[in-house]
Amino acid sequence: MSRPPADPPAPLAPPAAEPTVGELSEAELLARVLPLLTRPAAQVLLGPGDDCAVVAAPDGRYVITTDTQVEDQDFRLAWPSGVRTTGYDTGVKCAAQNLADVAAMGAVPSALVVSLTLPPRTPVSWPEDFARGLAAGCEAMGAQRCAVVGGDLGSGRELSVTATVTGDLEGRDPVRRAGAGEGGVLALAGTTGRAAAGMALLEDPRYRAGQDEALDELAAAQLRPCAPVPAGPAAARAGATAMIDLSDGLLRDAGRVAAASGVVVDLDGAAVAALAGPLDPAARLLGADPRDWVLTGGEDHGLLAVFPQGAPLPGAFRAIGSCAPAPPGHDGTRPRVLLDGRAPHLALGHPVGEGWDHFEP
Amino acid sequence: MSRPPADPPAPLAPPAAEPTVGELSEAELLARVLPLLTRPAAQVLLGPGDDCAVVAAPDGRYVITTDTQVEDQDFRLAWPSGVRTTGYDTGVKCAAQNLADVAAMGAVPSALVVSLTLPPRTPVSWPEDFARGLAAGCEAMGAQRCAVVGGDLGSGRELSVTATVTGDLEGRDPVRRAGAGEGGVLALAGTTGRAAAGMALLEDPRYRAGQDEALDELAAAQLRPCAPVPAGPAAARAGATAMIDLSDGLLRDAGRVAAASGVVVDLDGAAVAALAGPLDPAARLLGADPRDWVLTGGEDHGLLAVFPQGAPLPGAFRAIGSCAPAPPGHDGTRPRVLLDGRAPHLALGHPVGEGWDHFEP
Repeated sequence: MSRPPADPPAPLAPPAAEPTVGELSEAELLARVLPLLTRPAAQVLLGPGDDCAVVAAPDGRYVITTDTQVEDQDFRLAWPSGVRTTGYDTGVKCAAQNLADVAAMGAVPSALVVSLTLPPRTPVSWPEDFARGLAAGCEAMGAQRCAVVGGDLGSGRELSVTATVTGDLEGRDPVRRAGAGEGGVLALAGTTGRAAAGMALLEDPRYRAGQDEALDELAAAQLRPCAPVPAGPAAARAGATAMIDLSDGLLRDAGRVAAASGVVVDLDGAAVAALAGPLDPAARLLGADPRDWVLTGGEDHGLLAVFPQGAPLPGAFRAIGSCAPAPPGHDGTRPRVLLDGRAPHLALGHPVGEGWDHFEP
Repeated sequence: MSRPPADPPAPLAPPAAEPTVGELSEAELLARVLPLLTRPAAQVLLGPGDDCAVVAAPDGRYVITTDTQVEDQDFRLAWPSGVRTTGYDTGVKCAAQNLADVAAMGAVPSALVVSLTLPPRTPVSWPEDFARGLAAGCEAMGAQRCAVVGGDLGSGRELSVTATVTGDLEGRDPVRRAGAGEGGVLALAGTTGRAAAGMALLEDPRYRAGQDEALDELAAAQLRPCAPVPAGPAAARAGATAMIDLSDGLLRDAGRVAAASGVVVDLDGAAVAALAGPLDPAARLLGADPRDWVLTGGEDHGLLAVFPQGAPLPGAFRAIGSCAPAPPGHDGTRPRVLLDGRAPHLALGHPVGEGWDHFEP
């Protein structure tokens, strides 16, 4: 698994010679984008081009999830720091957020359908780059078997992308959020907090791309997150009893596992500090507390799993905490997630337990 | 199968007492919308609430398709005629366009995931009504077994809805577009042209809702189309060799079947006239040619199927034409779809073969 390569940034407004999607018919646009996305795959019994695709479900079940990204909500074409993105970045991010949800069930991603809503002024290179990023993201994140089997192209005032991905459980039970038991080991594959540090950099004019490799890597974690997709099925094979995709922040997502499982999760302060270390350069530049990013930052799409006490962890995972039974009468008003046995406090005064909420102000 | 009931129109701006989605957290909004959508269903092995749902695929395959609707592209909150819509209308339309694609493969819809992008000013009643419309649409169109198993809620500047639906082939081969043979009977289940006539009415201030039942029914066909979903599997069981969902107009969609199958389709003028008849009241009011709506109007989501010559048609279908071998050397520059043996001409001077294209001006 390697991070998807960066694509050279493209100018926001198309050069005079570059066509916009408004100048092409839907069929012409499809003819440009589809070949960048599709390839033969054993599980695809009928690919794009008909009313539906047909996909094999070898064990008689499939997992399914959907995720939308909207311009200026989930990605930006231009950041306050001056960084500009292309469709390639959004394609990689689309792959990460969808594939991670499938991996978090212990399943192997099998098929994707994707719908693009494009303002007519969008340069044709944007959907083309998106397709390249989606394909490269699947490849780089270890979802080589996953194939794009269909989609929809439409016009709108706002750029937006919705993907639905399905996966194969390979005969195993799905790994749910409810399943963390007393004494279970909480373990992380991939990263958390890096995408949030990267967003803080990208949002800040003090960050200038190309001057500090450590900072650029954090920005890349926001722009092109890399989900540890094969770690999901590996966790399932290793006996993980609960798992979640870390999309909304460690406190919030660990809290979801704890609430669903009826336990309290205790994060290990040293592990949190180790995750915060690589964020120090960004924290110094911006005057932030890197631990806040680790505890509340979403969008890295790491996998948080619970393993039985004493079980060997698969290679991609490191232990970052443990599970204890919830005290009798735990009513949800006390924190479900502790840090070294105590309620965590955030430097920036967020309410404890906060992470990303699409509708919060 | 009965047309989904109309919902009383709601005012565009929320009354002072009604909350907007921007005032609710994502969890609060989900808690309101999810119960309106979900219900137990045998094929749903794990419903909403985890990273993915798990759905049974009894015959080891599933069909899958996705469709997006964007405000002012695919639906309107307020029409020039004064008609206002609610989320209920968009929910029914979402059901129709997605279910019809599954039915057109000869499959039975099994599971839906749906993503809503909502401007913060949207009244909470909109997603609630959307959920009610989606559920009622599935029920009314004969997709009672289809269950909503997941989704995504997010914020954006523009109201938009993307659904992905999967279906079960029940052990049959999928009915593709390619499969129309010489002498095959072209048959239609459901309607075509009515939604286009309805759109023309809704776009025109000369139409006033509530004054003429025939006109109101046409407007309803645009606002809340009713796809003949069970006719899809019925066609497959009756031996249909090709099928397509009529979403982009009869000429365009029949042309797709003809091109994929290497045949020429000859529409029966009397059958087209019969389909145009119920559009006469709208055509008279607006000074339009009802036959144009039949030939080029999309969005009714009827099913167009080809049956072997002499095969009894399932009850939902009526014959509207026949298939002949394409002349040798047919290179796509000559029409694939004829009307009584001749190239069709449209009253309004559209190029022949035109239907709906999302990016055409």
